[in-house]
Amino acid sequence: MDKRVANELIRGLTDLFGNASSVHVYGQKARAAVDRARREVGQLIGARQNEIVFVSGGTEANNLAIRGVCEASIPHGRHIVTSAIEHPSVAGVCDSLEKRGWEVSRVPVSEKGIVRIADVREAIRPDTVLITVMLANNEIGTIQPISEISKLVRKRREAGHQNLRLHTDAVQAAGRIDLNVDQLGCDLLSISGHKIYAPKGVGALYVRRGVRLAPQNIGGHQERERRGGTENVPAIMAFGEAAKISREELVVRTEHVRRLRDQFESEVQKRIEDVVLNGDRDARLPHLTNFSFRYIEGEGLLINLDLQGVAVSTGSACSSGTLEPSPVIRALGRDDELARGSIRFSFGKDNTDDDVDYVVEILADAVARLRELSPLNKQFVTSQTP
Amino acid sequence: MDKRVANELIRGLTDLFGNASSVHVYGQKARAAVDRARREVGQLIGARQNEIVFVSGGTEANNLAIRGVCEASIPHGRHIVTSAIEHPSVAGVCDSLEKRGWEVSRVPVSEKGIVRIADVREAIRPDTVLITVMLANNEIGTIQPISEISKLVRKRREAGHQNLRLHTDAVQAAGRIDLNVDQLGCDLLSISGHKIYAPKGVGALYVRRGVRLAPQNIGGHQERERRGGTENVPAIMAFGEAAKISREELVVRTEHVRRLRDQFESEVQKRIEDVVLNGDRDARLPHLTNFSFRYIEGEGLLINLDLQGVAVSTGSACSSGTLEPSPVIRALGRDDELARGSIRFSFGKDNTDDDVDYVVEILADAVARLRELSPLNKQFVTSQTP
Repeated sequence: MDKRVANELIRGLTDLFGNASSVHVYGQKARAAVDRARREVGQLIGARQNEIVFVSGGTEANNLAIRGVCEASIPHGRHIVTSAIEHPSVAGVCDSLEKRGWEVSRVPVSEKGIVRIADVREAIRPDTVLITVMLANNEIGTIQPISEISKLVRKRREAGHQNLRLHTDAVQAAGRIDLNVDQLGCDLLSISGHKIYAPKGVGALYVRRGVRLAPQNIGGHQERERRGGTENVPAIMAFGEAAKISREELVVRTEHVRRLRDQFESEVQKRIEDVVLNGDRDARLPHLTNFSFRYIEGEGLLINLDLQGVAVSTGSACSSGTLEPSPVIRALGRDDELARGSIRFSFGKDNTDDDVDYVVEILADAVARLRELSPLNKQFVTSQTP
Repeated sequence: MDKRVANELIRGLTDLFGNASSVHVYGQKARAAVDRARREVGQLIGARQNEIVFVSGGTEANNLAIRGVCEASIPHGRHIVTSAIEHPSVAGVCDSLEKRGWEVSRVPVSEKGIVRIADVREAIRPDTVLITVMLANNEIGTIQPISEISKLVRKRREAGHQNLRLHTDAVQAAGRIDLNVDQLGCDLLSISGHKIYAPKGVGALYVRRGVRLAPQNIGGHQERERRGGTENVPAIMAFGEAAKISREELVVRTEHVRRLRDQFESEVQKRIEDVVLNGDRDARLPHLTNFSFRYIEGEGLLINLDLQGVAVSTGSACSSGTLEPSPVIRALGRDDELARGSIRFSFGKDNTDDDVDYVVEILADAVARLRELSPLNKQFVTSQTP
């Protein structure tokens, strides 16, 4: 967490303990602080403050967006269009709606991890109520053509398909690329606090004015009836501060992580053989890269790096614990071996050139060592030498 | 927030920044801290740690309990029994299920605010899947006979009604009275962090082993598939610490607030005429009292007290902003005038005898002043004097 964000959090915890829905002065002070944060989060994505619904995180934002739109649209249809590489919090909600009578079309991606507009166009049916496609992928960082999809949606609306909505999960993109809901043309957009150096436990759903949404957390009148429950005032304040800093420092941060990432990538490709870059080299987030290392398992590599103080991941943290190869990497058309050998490396604002050098060094060593031991490698050698 | 709790929160924010679902060591340290907190929260209510599901607060706990049980029980029936004085986060979810085809029986309460066992028994039908009755009311503090209700449930189960579940909203009761899920005999129980001096934004649902629950926040494998989303590690740690302290200091805290509350109550009744105590004098929480002041509006009194630094409420904060008289007070059979003139006073561990004296003083003044101005009072005077 950013120090300035931590200070705002502490201010919220110590000075603004009131319930933001209470009438007394402690409540009203908390209310004012929440409203200020709402403006900041709105500004980060080019939205009006009353289009921001504060929730407990990215997962809740995605759940609220998808179920909220689908339940509010029941008379108009029960069909959803999504992509094959969504985060578990989008894919899982779509799966659960499918079990309850909705139909779901999952648009594939190219081998670079990007949906094709023609596929999205073909997937849309007269009873489609929601298109939900992520803005940037969490494992490989590829950026999806949301503004192109929104043009499709606009055309369909002009042709009378009024109830078609577009949602995008921008949890990975926020704070990494410039975000503007009008340029994107989406109706709903999810972001998460802890991805922009705010604390965990807070997120927001952008809901364009006029979009109907069935609330999922039902209780009081909070968040204009769209999300009940006592407002998490300090976390919301910290989120607002993080959004402000993120907007102000976007260019500097982006250039910094892009330079580190590019340097890392070129070193890895220079020093390690049989390594495959996953995703698109151009249309992607600046701070992460994803490599598959042939002949080895990502899990073993992860543990090796971890013992040397480097935290990487083999898939989304939300799907760790499963032994399945990453569905995202498989969706690129990679075989199981490459999908199992994939690792995501991501860089933050506080990483340095020395960090990159260190990781390259231990990574090259670890890959070499693991390959010596790998049964996959032996099979490969055997099959090459008879 | 308690200082010791704040320290634990800060430790979580600074030292344990890992994602508790990640495989690397930062993740595993966070996981261990979450597990420790899970044991503490379990101990507060006499539950095993794997029966605790961490959520974003009391409202989410109630939503997850009710929708989670109802959706998982669809083949067995669509009938819910609840009480007439539930918190908006229970009443609202029941209302929303009613719109979607469930049937809801709302058991009334006595004039002291307590449900009658006979009424609950009569309300249960063969297709009832859930009874949800709060443990203690948020406005008047009355304690409901949950262990008596659980005996009914047990009998029904023995008679073959296997799928009947009992949920209780214990958000107001936690930290105020001793809680034990086995003594209560409930299958699900909701608690909230910020009611026991932990930060906002965290709560827990107890789910007895073997109870099926349809997850509502769908995403990763967190919370044993019952609640997706990155764990809010620092808030969960703080919640664990608050639960531990709450358990250790329960008796001292309870005696302290009970003494202040009783002192306040007797002074108010001595010094102010035409005041009615709402709720039961015996079966109630130790820290709060609710009075209706005849001839005046609660809202006006609240604002008067607020200007003098005293924060009280006219109903649940989750229903403030409405002009309707409190449905809880109306459920006691009070007329609209008394319902509108009701105020909840609650005392915390840090309140003192001087606080009580001060509140009594300004309250007596404010009531006298408001009554002089009150049109209700004039009507009363007129009707008495012709």
